Amino acid sequence: MEVVECELARVLINDRSDQQIIVLREKGGARSFPIMVGIFEALALDRKLKNRRMPRPLTHDLVENVLRELGGTLRRVTVSDLRENTFFAVLEISVDGRTVCVDARPSDGIVLAVSAGVPIFVAKGVLDEAAVQSGDSFGIDEGPAPFSAPEEPEEE
Amino acid sequence: MEVVECELARVLINDRSDQQIIVLREKGGARSFPIMVGIFEALALDRKLKNRRMPRPLTHDLVENVLRELGGTLRRVTVSDLRENTFFAVLEISVDGRTVCVDARPSDGIVLAVSAGVPIFVAKGVLDEAAVQSGDSFGIDEGPAPFSAPEEPEEE
Repeated sequence: MEVVECELARVLINDRSDQQIIVLREKGGARSFPIMVGIFEALALDRKLKNRRMPRPLTHDLVENVLRELGGTLRRVTVSDLRENTFFAVLEISVDGRTVCVDARPSDGIVLAVSAGVPIFVAKGVLDEAAVQSGDSFGIDEGPAPFSAPEEPEEE
Repeated sequence: MEVVECELARVLINDRSDQQIIVLREKGGARSFPIMVGIFEALALDRKLKNRRMPRPLTHDLVENVLRELGGTLRRVTVSDLRENTFFAVLEISVDGRTVCVDARPSDGIVLAVSAGVPIFVAKGVLDEAAVQSGDSFGIDEGPAPFSAPEEPEEE
């Protein structure tokens, strides 16, 4: 699978909407595309970007803790497919000298990639298709990426 | 740590509230106590109880998938502590013949326990303290456990 390294360009959070938007942008390129995600995943991503540690592990922190305690290391996240308007992603994890791939939604994958500081790749075919579909309207010529999130309640 | 096996007695979901309630009840006993959880975790628990499979792995499914792909098996979940009104839990995971413990919120732990069909334990001291605090008002004499959840939007 030919892949292109991308970076997270934007996280647009609107707490009055069921669908939030994250934008991936080709690294060193001009193409970008949006992925619709849930509010929970968008807020988790926002927390990771802002390096906000919560007193107790939230669910994405739990994924990281389980991964680490079982001896795994996240190497990279790849948005691997786009089928019927649904993006698919794969976590590449090293464990005991081998590589394990775990199916994930891109939202969860990107939260984990940002948190671990590992690269995000997108299959070339997916980028070709998605960037065309979005008409490049989420491009890089709109200034720095705005990240915004509403306050959220504490839990437990 | 002396523990008491408990079971999930209730999940009370009110989508107009930031705090949802799950109730654990002593197995074969009369004592029970509530734990406040977030809406995301309560909905995840509700889905697991109703055996609703989503087309794509949600975040708790991802925890399970990472756990399985790394060779781990969840054995049990224990609500291990109660400090400053916050409950703590531990996932006990078998991997390569050894046991690994992972810190978790009880909400995440109970979602995973219900999904995997493994027992839920509560430290005796926690049960003693929490059941007294709640005045046993979440007892078993109110008929069968009602599980209710609002409809939720699809994601991605």
